[in-house]
Amino acid sequence: MMPVSTGVPHRVYGQSTSGNCHKVRLACDILKIPYRWHEVDIMEGTTRTPQYLAMNPNGKVPLLQVDDRTYLPESNAILCYLADGTHLWPGDRLARAQVLQWLFFEQYSHEPYIAVARFIKVFMKKHDDERMPNLLKRGYAALDVMEKQLEGRRYFVGATPTIADIALFAYTHCAADGGFELGRYPNVSGWLARCLDQPGVTPMPAQP
Amino acid sequence: MMPVSTGVPHRVYGQSTSGNCHKVRLACDILKIPYRWHEVDIMEGTTRTPQYLAMNPNGKVPLLQVDDRTYLPESNAILCYLADGTHLWPGDRLARAQVLQWLFFEQYSHEPYIAVARFIKVFMKKHDDERMPNLLKRGYAALDVMEKQLEGRRYFVGATPTIADIALFAYTHCAADGGFELGRYPNVSGWLARCLDQPGVTPMPAQP
Repeated sequence: MMPVSTGVPHRVYGQSTSGNCHKVRLACDILKIPYRWHEVDIMEGTTRTPQYLAMNPNGKVPLLQVDDRTYLPESNAILCYLADGTHLWPGDRLARAQVLQWLFFEQYSHEPYIAVARFIKVFMKKHDDERMPNLLKRGYAALDVMEKQLEGRRYFVGATPTIADIALFAYTHCAADGGFELGRYPNVSGWLARCLDQPGVTPMPAQP
Repeated sequence: MMPVSTGVPHRVYGQSTSGNCHKVRLACDILKIPYRWHEVDIMEGTTRTPQYLAMNPNGKVPLLQVDDRTYLPESNAILCYLADGTHLWPGDRLARAQVLQWLFFEQYSHEPYIAVARFIKVFMKKHDDERMPNLLKRGYAALDVMEKQLEGRRYFVGATPTIADIALFAYTHCAADGGFELGRYPNVSGWLARCLDQPGVTPMPAQP
């Protein structure tokens, strides 16, 4: 199935080196949804300007412009919106809930550790930050849960990729940037390779 | 519309004084879904036992037993599952994405501050914890975003309650436990009162 098209390309406000933003690019590229990328620099405070806060009062990227007056924030809600009615979003009630389970896992138990460790090392260029031991401990706990789920499974829910895989791919494929050793995780490493084999899936650009 | 019934009451593993768990109770009570509540004490380490980790490798509550072999974790994924096909989950694609937007907002920008502040004060009984100033700052930022969204709106998405309201009600109605002054937020306070007026909606039990 193809997603509903409004005729006008969506505008995506995002920072290309942010995993949360990269998720939106991946979903559009996989589903061949036309979009215009509007690059936003978080470090320059662009998301805290009155103009940006009028579009997203929570001041975060990514942000999807749905129409002239409607902006949708939250990367994983954007994934659900873009994938609605497509092969990336299961039709079965339980499978859909399981996809959501992994989307919430990603935002609560994975991103706050694995993405933040990367942010501290790559963007803040701090290598002795006092938060790192806890971030590594909690991030490895998330990778342990993923490794267990991928035992005997090719993707997180069902036999084919869903938006759960897109969401978890985003920060897992660059977890080494934050100091995580992915070599410890054969199931996760195999799954990352399978994700990268999908048409439309690209690694996130490196920080300039 | 009524939810799909499997004939056997769902078993819910949860701690009654946890807002994430209270969400599940509220959804079941509002939708008149039969359930058996299995009380779990997080502080006693029950969620870290091999038996519990076999049901939920991420070791968290709540957990919904869907059938003999299927367990669904993540409070907001459970809400989506229970509400699928009911009046609490919109049929419109954009409205559904907006409900999800607020569910992800709740887990990323609200719960880690407002629930954690309450946990430190009520459960750990620490009143001078060094994390409190940051938790209060970030929690108030979440309340600011909610106050703005509720300007001229009765509920978070559309004209009637959805699972977005249930999810945000859970830790907002007891935010004072963590030191937040809800009196500063007339829109949020009015919305909380409207939520409590709904059949099936009850406040969370106080910590014994």
